[in-house]
Amino acid sequence: MSHTETLTSVEELSLAQRFQDVRAQTMRLVAPLETEDLVVQPAEFVSPAKWHLAHTTWFFEVFVLQASSPSYQLFHPDFPFLFNSYYVSAGDRWTRAERGFLTRPTVAEILKYRTYVEEHLLDFLSREDLSPEQQHVMEVGLQHEQQHQELLLYDIKYILGYNPLLPVYDSTLNVRHSATGLSDWVAIEKGNYLVGFEGEGFAFDNEFGRHEVHLEAFEIADQLLTNGEYLEFMEAGGYEDHRLWLSEGWDWVSEQSRKVPLYWYQEDGRWMQYTLAGARALDLNAPVAHLSYFEADAFARWKGCRLPTEFEWEVAQAHRQGADVGGFVEDQLSEPCSVAGGYLGNLWEWTSSAYLPYPFYKAPKGALGEYNGKFMINQKVLRGGSYATPRSHIRPTYRNFFHPQLQWMFSGVRLAKHK
Amino acid sequence: MSHTETLTSVEELSLAQRFQDVRAQTMRLVAPLETEDLVVQPAEFVSPAKWHLAHTTWFFEVFVLQASSPSYQLFHPDFPFLFNSYYVSAGDRWTRAERGFLTRPTVAEILKYRTYVEEHLLDFLSREDLSPEQQHVMEVGLQHEQQHQELLLYDIKYILGYNPLLPVYDSTLNVRHSATGLSDWVAIEKGNYLVGFEGEGFAFDNEFGRHEVHLEAFEIADQLLTNGEYLEFMEAGGYEDHRLWLSEGWDWVSEQSRKVPLYWYQEDGRWMQYTLAGARALDLNAPVAHLSYFEADAFARWKGCRLPTEFEWEVAQAHRQGADVGGFVEDQLSEPCSVAGGYLGNLWEWTSSAYLPYPFYKAPKGALGEYNGKFMINQKVLRGGSYATPRSHIRPTYRNFFHPQLQWMFSGVRLAKHK
Amino acid sequence: MSHTETLTSVEELSLAQRFQDVRAQTMRLVAPLETEDLVVQPAEFVSPAKWHLAHTTWFFEVFVLQASSPSYQLFHPDFPFLFNSYYVSAGDRWTRAERGFLTRPTVAEILKYRTYVEEHLLDFLSREDLSPEQQHVMEVGLQHEQQHQELLLYDIKYILGYNPLLPVYDSTLNVRHSATGLSDWVAIEKGNYLVGFEGEGFAFDNEFGRHEVHLEAFEIADQLLTNGEYLEFMEAGGYEDHRLWLSEGWDWVSEQSRKVPLYWYQEDGRWMQYTLAGARALDLNAPVAHLSYFEADAFARWKGCRLPTEFEWEVAQAHRQGADVGGFVEDQLSEPCSVAGGYLGNLWEWTSSAYLPYPFYKAPKGALGEYNGKFMINQKVLRGGSYATPRSHIRPTYRNFFHPQLQWMFSGVRLAKHK
Amino acid sequence: MSHTETLTSVEELSLAQRFQDVRAQTMRLVAPLETEDLVVQPAEFVSPAKWHLAHTTWFFEVFVLQASSPSYQLFHPDFPFLFNSYYVSAGDRWTRAERGFLTRPTVAEILKYRTYVEEHLLDFLSREDLSPEQQHVMEVGLQHEQQHQELLLYDIKYILGYNPLLPVYDSTLNVRHSATGLSDWVAIEKGNYLVGFEGEGFAFDNEFGRHEVHLEAFEIADQLLTNGEYLEFMEAGGYEDHRLWLSEGWDWVSEQSRKVPLYWYQEDGRWMQYTLAGARALDLNAPVAHLSYFEADAFARWKGCRLPTEFEWEVAQAHRQGADVGGFVEDQLSEPCSVAGGYLGNLWEWTSSAYLPYPFYKAPKGALGEYNGKFMINQKVLRGGSYATPRSHIRPTYRNFFHPQLQWMFSGVRLAKHK
Repeated sequence: MSHTETLTSVEELSLAQRFQDVRAQTMRLVAPLETEDLVVQPAEFVSPAKWHLAHTTWFFEVFVLQASSPSYQLFHPDFPFLFNSYYVSAGDRWTRAERGFLTRPTVAEILKYRTYVEEHLLDFLSREDLSPEQQHVMEVGLQHEQQHQELLLYDIKYILGYNPLLPVYDSTLNVRHSATGLSDWVAIEKGNYLVGFEGEGFAFDNEFGRHEVHLEAFEIADQLLTNGEYLEFMEAGGYEDHRLWLSEGWDWVSEQSRKVPLYWYQEDGRWMQYTLAGARALDLNAPVAHLSYFEADAFARWKGCRLPTEFEWEVAQAHRQGADVGGFVEDQLSEPCSVAGGYLGNLWEWTSSAYLPYPFYKAPKGALGEYNGKFMINQKVLRGGSYATPRSHIRPTYRNFFHPQLQWMFSGVRLAKHK
Repeated sequence: MSHTETLTSVEELSLAQRFQDVRAQTMRLVAPLETEDLVVQPAEFVSPAKWHLAHTTWFFEVFVLQASSPSYQLFHPDFPFLFNSYYVSAGDRWTRAERGFLTRPTVAEILKYRTYVEEHLLDFLSREDLSPEQQHVMEVGLQHEQQHQELLLYDIKYILGYNPLLPVYDSTLNVRHSATGLSDWVAIEKGNYLVGFEGEGFAFDNEFGRHEVHLEAFEIADQLLTNGEYLEFMEAGGYEDHRLWLSEGWDWVSEQSRKVPLYWYQEDGRWMQYTLAGARALDLNAPVAHLSYFEADAFARWKGCRLPTEFEWEVAQAHRQGADVGGFVEDQLSEPCSVAGGYLGNLWEWTSSAYLPYPFYKAPKGALGEYNGKFMINQKVLRGGSYATPRSHIRPTYRNFFHPQLQWMFSGVRLAKHK
Repeated sequence: MSHTETLTSVEELSLAQRFQDVRAQTMRLVAPLETEDLVVQPAEFVSPAKWHLAHTTWFFEVFVLQASSPSYQLFHPDFPFLFNSYYVSAGDRWTRAERGFLTRPTVAEILKYRTYVEEHLLDFLSREDLSPEQQHVMEVGLQHEQQHQELLLYDIKYILGYNPLLPVYDSTLNVRHSATGLSDWVAIEKGNYLVGFEGEGFAFDNEFGRHEVHLEAFEIADQLLTNGEYLEFMEAGGYEDHRLWLSEGWDWVSEQSRKVPLYWYQEDGRWMQYTLAGARALDLNAPVAHLSYFEADAFARWKGCRLPTEFEWEVAQAHRQGADVGGFVEDQLSEPCSVAGGYLGNLWEWTSSAYLPYPFYKAPKGALGEYNGKFMINQKVLRGGSYATPRSHIRPTYRNFFHPQLQWMFSGVRLAKHK
Repeated sequence: MSHTETLTSVEELSLAQRFQDVRAQTMRLVAPLETEDLVVQPAEFVSPAKWHLAHTTWFFEVFVLQASSPSYQLFHPDFPFLFNSYYVSAGDRWTRAERGFLTRPTVAEILKYRTYVEEHLLDFLSREDLSPEQQHVMEVGLQHEQQHQELLLYDIKYILGYNPLLPVYDSTLNVRHSATGLSDWVAIEKGNYLVGFEGEGFAFDNEFGRHEVHLEAFEIADQLLTNGEYLEFMEAGGYEDHRLWLSEGWDWVSEQSRKVPLYWYQEDGRWMQYTLAGARALDLNAPVAHLSYFEADAFARWKGCRLPTEFEWEVAQAHRQGADVGGFVEDQLSEPCSVAGGYLGNLWEWTSSAYLPYPFYKAPKGALGEYNGKFMINQKVLRGGSYATPRSHIRPTYRNFFHPQLQWMFSGVRLAKHK
């Protein structure tokens, strides 16, 4: 896996070139793995790495190639059944919880599948003038594969970190350290603001409908919460004090005997955490990661603060001072940077907002209408991207979403409060 | 159970008088039941009726009597353990899912418990000048018992309706019929509006913080969705079309093979529903009740509409024309009225809003801080009250909340859309 | 509940008289209960007492009255659905795990059902000369109701003992104490023996087929294991030593954190147990009761002994010295007797035998064929009867059976060993 | 994998030679697999193939090398934790249900582990005069690895057969066909017989204690039940007739909607089954395999017969006419032979006997005491071995055991009846 400096902006690249770049990046991410690592599924929310390799390929095969050319021959008649994720409109599919039970097709066969579809797709791109609709679906396919690149890293970390041997994913990954001050509060005035996406370039359906919201005056931290600050909460008995927790969070803490964030453990009295480069002593100045919403929310309450809404976050991001410096997947980091930085990259930031449609939201027609809208229940919005996010994939209006008990994604915390 | 005409507004009544009225109303609600009906718990979200009788008493005993007089003797040392619901601050409690396993104390003993606490409480009210804090807790106790009156009716209906004999709760309950037209759309202008509670009288912590919100222009139905309209959705295959459902809703429909709302069934080709007065032919003009959020949301999508947000609902309620006519518990209805009416009473109306804190929300200190705030996750707001709600209990700013899969509460649907 | 001295042997009584006696005994057993106690079901293996009252009635109604007279009118058309237990041949039935969700029919209605069926049955007995088949079914009905009398006491004890208030079932029950020596070993020679039922009188299908078995020489205790002996096992760390347990027993102990037999607890350092007469200090000389097979087996292994097979038990019973003195339900005991005694009565004795058909076993035709044979898997045989067993119900060849993890029946332990 | 003709009887071979042979056979079994196939665990009763490779190695490492030489260096300090199966005495172990979540150690690392332990063990065997105890543990280690060879084939078949692609394990495996007549009945006289192991050579603790049993006269089939006969049962509605099933069997059929044996399916109206050589048309003359006890028992009842007890089986085997011809693992079969044959090999035969200790049974001391005895509950005995059994591993007194609902082992049915 090597760092790719992109001087050319993605918009100037041809679709074919971008397709090749994105596909190559997926392969770079799995390069450090052993074959065995690509097969298993230790939790329902995790998918085997080889499934990601095939599923992203299926997306192009079915939604671009098959949809565009009646004569297109599927690589294998059973692969749509095996590699459709949740698109009910696209036909029956293998049970999600049992993706890790399938040893075939092997990794080698899936790589052949990738090559087959890539060749047909490049041929298709070279021969056709794509309709706007086709261009859009290609674009969604690229964004989709980038999202799965991010999930791949979550899943790889979870699979390796679940193993008591704590194997290293990649020992050559970078760590970015710098002296860190405490976070400062940035004030935003009460008023009406515009939020949501508008303009050129790609955005998902859930970002559209730029619209006015009214915000009360608030203050927001200019940095992410650190491991050191979170350790104070733990040492103050945060996990034992029911008053700090949402009721379902307290159930979660109690039933699972939670005492620390995911990937933290103690060794000879020292706090350690599992990273993509293996076990490391906990860096107290680095941002705390892998908190569930319940933990983020409990910490904020303990601190007398709260999490920002997604609109506060978006408005604060637009008013930020200085450039974003936080890492993206191209920075090849083993863990988030302990560097004062901006809003994009490093860690996804939990907001207090439920994941709901914007005023004028309309799901697209067809199977792609299942992409976002049907998940708008019981999930929380996260903003900003992470060090597993491709730099070209993120926007300030980007809305990510997860269930409140999940921890395996690269999530962090930015505090807010009313004046 | 007889209808009480209150000419005197509740504010003018003494606390003691209101206490006696509320307590008497609870007893009226259980009067038609057999002893056996008061004991069981056919689902975790249901509580035995005798548990409600004791729990509401415990609330006054612990938060008023015990908190105010160190010399107060508990009626029974084990009752706080048995009848605390979810107040972790107030000590250990019997497992919620096992409330229906306890045959003792018997109903007769619980009635003695009620009398004992009532006598002590009236004595306390007569002898003391209550501090504002004490007055507030008394007030919360009254509101709390009113909420449990409503839950009592949900639970009684569920317990009796679960029984294949479909026993009648009360055959003397009223039905309100009138010719009904189709619902009309009422338009509300884009703009900033104030929402939330402010002013005299009681409101819950979750309503406070009157604040400005920005709304896009929208239209909202002036009547509730009817059984007849919902039947059209069913007959059009609504339960079989995944595209209409949220993903978790589709799982719910599929796993539980849902095809009809709770309490509906067919007999000799005729649609029937279980009501508090027993089995009745379905009234196509009456409002559809007992929909889960998933069903309400799927119907709205099928209709090309959506559910209103809680703020749209609150603003529309303030702009309504004509008085509210819809039934309250004092109207002693067996089912919701088929009468064009207002926003308060008849059925709780699902909104698309997640149950979240208002800006500036602060939970009270102590055990009562667990009343509302800790439930602000994974639930949806409902507005307006139902025919199980005491008239004196409801307000336009009142925020009720339930999980999206629940159906046993008296819930209904008012559609909205953007112009 | 009063003690019935029967000078007349049951065989001399008319069927009608025996029917009335058995039915009256069932009512005596529930007489001390409150209505609430008759309704609930705190575990799937427990049934509500009112269900027992109705189910035993249903048995006579369907298998005698309805089977014999085409003109017989069911008391209620839905009762067969509600009160069939597991007779698939007899039609659909209400889910076993949800018997405790039904408040109707009320206890009063079930008593009317009992009276209705009793009147019709006595009329039937007075008017007809019963065929041998009809006599047999009547006899099975009586034995069946006696078995449910025993289950009634298990279930009543479980329901009341589950309640933290530990309510008393009947404070007038007897305790039989006497000085107790240690158990002695009785030797039985190696040889072929005959086992199984043969002769006059009633026996269940699973006892028939008297047949030869070969036994190695063995020794068997002349008394039941006592609470005091079991306490030694506990204090020696028996529940913590995996080597003493069957693998599934160790899982059971570990997952449920078992440390003591059912109904034991400590209060101020003293060992207590819940009895039918309420909480009592543990009598160290009384037989230990409410052990699962796993516990009985682990104790025996710890002691260097084993449990007898059901054939060793039956042969040893036939060779016993002295009369059986141990209590039956007519003795109205609150707990087993601390009295050296015989093999019948007091507590059911776990044997190491799996519940399997005897050579030549044949299940009867029709629904009664479901009575015993279909349960011959994954259960263990117990022998001898208990202080909840009617004296007229038990025989040395009687084969009771339960799953190895169950504790709520009145089970005890008699040790055996090879010389 | 190639067929090894052993002219030398195993008893004459040195321990070292036998160790090398057994280890090599394990590797032959996994040779046809892809790396991915070795990793997953689609059911708790299945283990990943790479786990078998490591666990059998751990057995020798811990019970022979570590137990014999204090200076022995473990290959890896964490492997005992990862590869102990159920030996509580041997320390903590990884959760059984999560064996398929571990990608590391990789297959390559486990092969190094095998080589390391093999080298140390051969060195140990060459340098030491083994004590009888050490010889015994070595012998158990060899038998243990042979048992896992059999499990390996069960698990491999299950893993590949679970995959909708139905991949072939080994297309070069043999099928043995021959004309088949119907099964004949062989009569055995009533009398006392000796059963259990006695004499030279290895046997497991559960076979020892040769002892007398009394058997009634019976008849037993001289051949296994065939696919054709089982198909008749299916076509006669066997899976729909509750009267044929044990109660727990009927629950199993109902809850899982069972209609066919494991690995059977229909394609274009033709009955197919998955074999180790891939999908094949069902051979009606071949023995039916992969029945649960519930299915075997239901079939026997439908046929008016029953399953033999394990003692009937053992006595009948001793009285058989003609040699055993049925396949063993060395015969490299893809499925059981359709050949009239004896009692050993081809398929394990369900008996009606519960798995219980023989009189005088004593579990060995130490961790190996956990090998057999602790599983003597809720399981059924199977006799005879299968085409996955090494020929040198089986004996007529060999007692295999499985839970009654399991189907993935290579099990078959031999009918019995009383005259």
